[in-house]
Amino acid sequence: MNIVLLSGGSGQRLWPLSNDIRSKQFIKIFHTADGELESMVQRVYRQIRTIDKDATVTIATSKSQVSAIHNQLGEDVGISVEPCRRDTFPAIALAAAYLKDVKGISEDEPVVVCPVDPYVEIDYFDALKDLGALAASSNANLVLMGIEPTYPSEKYGYIIPDTPAPVSTVSMFKEKPTKEIAEQYISQGALWNGGVFAFRLGYVLDRAHALIDFENYEDLFSKYETLDKISFDYAVVEHEDRIEVMRFSGMWKDLGTWNTLTEAMDSHNVGEALFNETCRNVHVVNELNLPVLCMGLKDIVVSASPDGILVSDKEQSSYIKPFVNTLDHRVMFAEKSWGSFRILDIEKESLTIKVTLNPGHQMNYHSHDFRNEVWNVISGTGRAVIDGVVYNVHAGDTLQMNAGSKHTIFADTELQIIEVQFGKDINVHDKHKYDLPSLF
Amino acid sequence: MNIVLLSGGSGQRLWPLSNDIRSKQFIKIFHTADGELESMVQRVYRQIRTIDKDATVTIATSKSQVSAIHNQLGEDVGISVEPCRRDTFPAIALAAAYLKDVKGISEDEPVVVCPVDPYVEIDYFDALKDLGALAASSNANLVLMGIEPTYPSEKYGYIIPDTPAPVSTVSMFKEKPTKEIAEQYISQGALWNGGVFAFRLGYVLDRAHALIDFENYEDLFSKYETLDKISFDYAVVEHEDRIEVMRFSGMWKDLGTWNTLTEAMDSHNVGEALFNETCRNVHVVNELNLPVLCMGLKDIVVSASPDGILVSDKEQSSYIKPFVNTLDHRVMFAEKSWGSFRILDIEKESLTIKVTLNPGHQMNYHSHDFRNEVWNVISGTGRAVIDGVVYNVHAGDTLQMNAGSKHTIFADTELQIIEVQFGKDINVHDKHKYDLPSLF
Repeated sequence: MNIVLLSGGSGQRLWPLSNDIRSKQFIKIFHTADGELESMVQRVYRQIRTIDKDATVTIATSKSQVSAIHNQLGEDVGISVEPCRRDTFPAIALAAAYLKDVKGISEDEPVVVCPVDPYVEIDYFDALKDLGALAASSNANLVLMGIEPTYPSEKYGYIIPDTPAPVSTVSMFKEKPTKEIAEQYISQGALWNGGVFAFRLGYVLDRAHALIDFENYEDLFSKYETLDKISFDYAVVEHEDRIEVMRFSGMWKDLGTWNTLTEAMDSHNVGEALFNETCRNVHVVNELNLPVLCMGLKDIVVSASPDGILVSDKEQSSYIKPFVNTLDHRVMFAEKSWGSFRILDIEKESLTIKVTLNPGHQMNYHSHDFRNEVWNVISGTGRAVIDGVVYNVHAGDTLQMNAGSKHTIFADTELQIIEVQFGKDINVHDKHKYDLPSLF
Repeated sequence: MNIVLLSGGSGQRLWPLSNDIRSKQFIKIFHTADGELESMVQRVYRQIRTIDKDATVTIATSKSQVSAIHNQLGEDVGISVEPCRRDTFPAIALAAAYLKDVKGISEDEPVVVCPVDPYVEIDYFDALKDLGALAASSNANLVLMGIEPTYPSEKYGYIIPDTPAPVSTVSMFKEKPTKEIAEQYISQGALWNGGVFAFRLGYVLDRAHALIDFENYEDLFSKYETLDKISFDYAVVEHEDRIEVMRFSGMWKDLGTWNTLTEAMDSHNVGEALFNETCRNVHVVNELNLPVLCMGLKDIVVSASPDGILVSDKEQSSYIKPFVNTLDHRVMFAEKSWGSFRILDIEKESLTIKVTLNPGHQMNYHSHDFRNEVWNVISGTGRAVIDGVVYNVHAGDTLQMNAGSKHTIFADTELQIIEVQFGKDINVHDKHKYDLPSLF
C-alpha cells in the first residue's frame, strides 16, 4: 500500500502542548501495549505497519516538522517536504511527484491520502487498503472514504451517495452545514467527508501537469513557492465526474480539541498527577517535572508544559484559540531530529537551556556574533569542536565559546548539556552556519 | 509597645506555596498601596509600624525562618530564635528573657503576644495597644483579647466572660467545640480565643523561673533543647485566677487554607494568569515563569510554584494535607537572608540551580567532598574566593570548583548565578564550612 499522510500546521487548540513548532500529532498521550507513551502520528504509523509492514508511507509536511517526524518515527519513513505551505492540491501534487520520481512508484499503482492524525482502530486501515484496491480496479478516477455519521456534526463536509451500497457513485458534496441541515443530510443517507481518498498515481500526476508547468519532482519542489494556494477539492474533486464513495462505519475521531482528546485518553493522567476522591472526569497532561494535585474538580482538563498551564472546563476548552493568540509565543521546548531542548531560565542578558543530543547526532557547526556561550556537560560523552580543535568531553566538563568562535558538539552517547548564553542581544537569528572540517 | 509575634511551623495546607522551609506567613499575595506585593508577615509588620513606629517587635520563631524574616522585614526586627520547637510556653519564656536581657525591657513594661499571621485591619493593632495598656494598669496578671465570633467555628477555643462589658473577668475557657456546642457558647456570650494576650514582662519571667531552672536569656537559650514541650495555656493560663478578657469586634481572619486565603486576596491573580469570561470566583497564585490560562472555571483556586501545581475546588482545598504528605518533599526554591535559590533541573548525576545573592551578601566559605561545581555568572558583579584566591567576577564569567576546593562568592551588586553541580552523590549534607580568611 502507498499511503500519503497529510501532516498539518501548528496547533493552538491544544495549547500548551502544541505550539508554533510542535503540532498536536506529536504530543505523546497514548499508551502502547508495553506501557510506553506514543503520539498520534506514532500510533497511526504503528497501526499502518501492523496491517501492512511493507507499506510505503510518505508524510507530506512542512520543513518545520521534519525533525519531529524523524525523531518519533525513525529514518525509514518517507517525507515529502513542502518548502512552504500552499494548501492541499500543491501538497498532494508534490507528494505524487515524490512517489514517482524518488520512490519509483508506478503510475498504475493506487495511492491513499489521509490526514496524519485520525484517532482510529485497525479496521480503519483495513478500509484504507480496500480503498486503495478499489482505486486500482474501479472505473472511477477518485474513490473517497465516506464515514458514517454518529451525530449531526457541523465540523465536517458531507458526501451524499447515490445508493446506500457499500460502494456508490456520488450524488453531491456539501460544505460544513449547520446542525439542522446536517440532520437533513443524514436523513438522506449522507456520509462525513474525512478527507480520505485514493487514486491511481498517474491520475493525480496528470491533473498536476495540467494545472502546473513542471518537469518532475525536483522541478516542482524548486518552484513550489511560486504556486498558488488551492485546495485539492477545488482543483480536482469539483471537476471530476468519475467519483465513488466507499462507506466506513468503524470508529473515526478527530482529536482536535482538549475535549475530544481527553475522551480518547486511556488514563486520567499522562505525567505526574494526583486526584482526590471527589474528582470526576478530570484529565491531566503534565510535561513539567513537578506534581499536579487536583481536588474536587469536575469535567476539567489540566495541561502543563514549559509553554504554560491550561486549566479548563472541557466544553469551554474549544474556545481556547483567541486566548493563546494573546500569549507570548517564545517556544520554550522542542523536539528535533538531533534531540531536544528546553529553556530553563530567561534573564535580560542571559538564557539557560537544557540541550539533549541523541547518540550519533550533532549540532550544526556554527558561531554567534553577539553572545558568548558555556556548555556544562551534565551527562554522556561526546566530542566538541571549537574553532577547528577537537575536544573529548564527558559529564562534568565545561566548555566556553566566545562570540565569533565556531563550535559544535557530537554525541557519542546521549549527551545532556546545560547551555548558558551571555549577551545583551540574545536571539535565535544570531547564528552563522559553517561546513564542518572532517576532523574525526 | 512591646509585641512578640509567634511565627509557627512549616505549612502544608497552602501547598505548593508553603513548603518545609517556607511557611504561609512569607507568601507574597497582598498588594500594598503602591502596587508592590507583600506577605502576611510584611503586612502585619507594616501595620504595627503604622500605629506605633517605635514599637519593639520581636518575632519568636525557629532557626529555619530567620533568613526569610530578615529578607522580608530587614535587619531591624528582633528575633528570638528557638533552637528547636518546644511549644508555646518555652517559646514565650525565651522571648521574655530575650526582651529583658537583650532588649533591656523593664519587668514592669507590658508585652503583647499574638500570632504572626492574622489577617486584620489597623483597628486590631489599636486594640493590641489598648491590651498592653490594660496589662500595665490592671490588677489582672494576664489580659486576653476575646474576639467576637462571626459564626460558630469549630476551629477556635472559646472564652466565656463573666460580663458583657468591654473588659471582664473570665468565667471559663473552653476547648475547640463542635458546631452545636459552639452555638451554645455563643448564646452565653462566649468569645473566640485567638491566642492574643498581654502581661507585664516580670509576670511571665516569674512563671518561667518557677518552672524552669535558668539564669538569664543566654542560659535559657543554651538549655532550650532539654526543656519539655508544654503550652502556655497549660503552664500558665490554667493556673492563673487573675485573668481579664478585652473584647474585640473588628475583622480578624485566620488565612490558614486556600479557601480563606483567596477570600482575602485583593486581586484574582498574583503572577501571570488569564481568565476567560465564563470564570467565576477563580483565584490564581502563580510563582512560575509561565502563563496560566483558566477557562470556564467556578470556585477554583490554581496555585503553581516550583514545588508543584494545585488545582482545587475552594471548599475541597481544606483537605489538602494528606495529599501533600505523599508528595516528594525536595525543596525546589527558598528565600534566604542572603538571597534566594531555585532548582532548575535535576538529573541523576547533576543539579542545576539558579542562585540570587543580594548586594552585600555572600555564601558561607565551604567545600564539598563528592561534587564539582561550576558557577555561570549571568548578572551582576562580585568577588569569588576559591582556595584563598580572590577573583573579581561579573556577568559572563564561569568559575569551576572541584570537590574539596573551598569557595564562596560575595555580591557587590545583585549577583545571579547558574550553578551546575556534578557528581554521583549530590546531597545537601555534603558541605564543610570554614572561616573566611580576611582577603578583602
